Amino acid sequence: MGMAANCLEKLIIDECCTRFGLGAHSGGLLTSGGTLANLTAMLSARRAMEDRWRGKTPAILVSEEAHYCIARAAKTMGWPPEAVIHVPTDADFRMQTERLESLYKQAMERGQQVIAVVGCACSTSTGSYDDLEAIADFCEQHDLWFHVDGAHGAAVVFSHTHAHLLKGAERANSIVLDFHKLLMAPALATALLYKNNQDSFRTFEQESAYLLDLQQDWYNSGKRTFECTKYMICAKIYGIVKTHGWDVFGENVDELYENARTFATSIAQRENLVLGAPVQSNILCFRFVEEGLTQEESNAQNAFIRQAIIERGEYYIVQTLLRGYRFLRLAVMNPFTTLTQFEELCTQIESYAKAWHESQ
Amino acid sequence: MGMAANCLEKLIIDECCTRFGLGAHSGGLLTSGGTLANLTAMLSARRAMEDRWRGKTPAILVSEEAHYCIARAAKTMGWPPEAVIHVPTDADFRMQTERLESLYKQAMERGQQVIAVVGCACSTSTGSYDDLEAIADFCEQHDLWFHVDGAHGAAVVFSHTHAHLLKGAERANSIVLDFHKLLMAPALATALLYKNNQDSFRTFEQESAYLLDLQQDWYNSGKRTFECTKYMICAKIYGIVKTHGWDVFGENVDELYENARTFATSIAQRENLVLGAPVQSNILCFRFVEEGLTQEESNAQNAFIRQAIIERGEYYIVQTLLRGYRFLRLAVMNPFTTLTQFEELCTQIESYAKAWHESQ
Repeated sequence: MGMAANCLEKLIIDECCTRFGLGAHSGGLLTSGGTLANLTAMLSARRAMEDRWRGKTPAILVSEEAHYCIARAAKTMGWPPEAVIHVPTDADFRMQTERLESLYKQAMERGQQVIAVVGCACSTSTGSYDDLEAIADFCEQHDLWFHVDGAHGAAVVFSHTHAHLLKGAERANSIVLDFHKLLMAPALATALLYKNNQDSFRTFEQESAYLLDLQQDWYNSGKRTFECTKYMICAKIYGIVKTHGWDVFGENVDELYENARTFATSIAQRENLVLGAPVQSNILCFRFVEEGLTQEESNAQNAFIRQAIIERGEYYIVQTLLRGYRFLRLAVMNPFTTLTQFEELCTQIESYAKAWHESQ
Repeated sequence: MGMAANCLEKLIIDECCTRFGLGAHSGGLLTSGGTLANLTAMLSARRAMEDRWRGKTPAILVSEEAHYCIARAAKTMGWPPEAVIHVPTDADFRMQTERLESLYKQAMERGQQVIAVVGCACSTSTGSYDDLEAIADFCEQHDLWFHVDGAHGAAVVFSHTHAHLLKGAERANSIVLDFHKLLMAPALATALLYKNNQDSFRTFEQESAYLLDLQQDWYNSGKRTFECTKYMICAKIYGIVKTHGWDVFGENVDELYENARTFATSIAQRENLVLGAPVQSNILCFRFVEEGLTQEESNAQNAFIRQAIIERGEYYIVQTLLRGYRFLRLAVMNPFTTLTQFEELCTQIESYAKAWHESQ
């Protein structure tokens, strides 16, 4: 990657670090997607914590609602499945942070060495934000690496209205943020930020003994990026910034989040639709409910509805299982989606619910 | 990634598999760069060979001239540095394949379990092609995974003139090929091919229990790609194919390789320039030599020359150390680079060699 790209990348990273309040020693890089960024953060954590876990089995604590790429990172690093300790979530699908202490103790008693806690900002299925402040407290107390998987929802750092959802993220050792989710950039465009920029240089240092020269080497981003050749990710982001200014990111997030709340209100007004979780982001999980149906029948009905919507081709929704129930999942990605369109979708859903009975 | 992209990706992968002669069960995917592709291939090898290495320390045999991303993959997977066993190269910087047997035995006697051999096609520094046929024989004999890192040079698969350099690659379990090096695509655009496509589905199967449905699931490339969200890599490649046809790739390679040979002949005619290795690809390593200089002085002279060339700004060359000597390294990437331009570069080199004396 050329020098122009390295400069633009630094401008973007520095602005992100400032917005997150990561402090004077922070830094980071752009990389090819959230999965790779989360793996890189876990590699940094493994490296930074190696004095702790050498001779033991390393482990991480993470919400049961975390994205599958966290488990993939652990598996990639050669860790056994039990190295990923899933913390149960509450009724709103947020990590039960009060369980961290006992899960930590149990792991240590089993001979595992917990090295990190991963917070979701937000979770994939329901868009729920973990209590990052509680996780930060816990990590500080036990001197653990605190990682925030904010691939989707850390975008609120640019919003005046929703930034409070990230309270505590400023104490994280590493944060992942996708610009290709809520920040208008085409895929892939992911930022990986570090509270201590030196951690990013240590990740791959086996191949690059540049440690003596840290301050001077900021322009050589290849030394700490997973990729050797990297495409000019910064251009996608800087193009937006140069055209519309940084504030456009917050405005986009605000619009999407507000629309999702409006749609949630509309759901609450319909007799046969229920939300799966309080709406904290642009993600809505809801399902059609009908008295007298078993769980299995109800799940079949919602699967039928979803398939019919997809085949009709006007709307695209995915599905997700929440505690055994099949939910329709919608991520509001276009700020121009209107309440009228959403209500039309709901009307279609109700009509396909009836059609399901006829199809039986 | 949408369905259109999955279809185009399959068209590209199928054509590549056919060109390599990988057979009826082959398949693969496009991914974000050679480093990630090589890691993915090593993850597939680790998975496919797990009955062999469980309870032992896995290891791989690879040329000492291999790209650093192979060692990075091993490190990422949590393997100790000694898991990467470096096979010495011959005078032409090709793997000494006759050493494989004894290195393999020594490793097994140390308690390591060799699971794979990685062949370079071609090596990064000198562009040398390993004897893939000899490696294939060795892997067959010991039932090992045979991986070809062809990120740079497997592009010759499209050339009638140079495809013979890949003899033996048709027996590989996995092959990496960058379209953004010699095949005219902008970065990143990498193909990862498998002799047995099922190996690609097994890599990440912890997260995706799609094994029963292998044949039907070709369109769901996400299940076997490292990335979750992947950008439309196929568009970069298919755009070229649709505009110019598949043959343009071979024509481009032929032009670059022929130019490199012509430049090599020109070097041979100059009194003070010597090649570091026979030119097998588009990569040229050469140095200025002058009688009466120590190795240290000679290296300083070549470093001075390189710095002066870079600062002048007309040509871009990198440097590489080969057995203690500093070489100027040139990768001919533009088919329109002429012999006149190259000779002008050589004349500059000779002039800066004199200037080095004056600077002392």
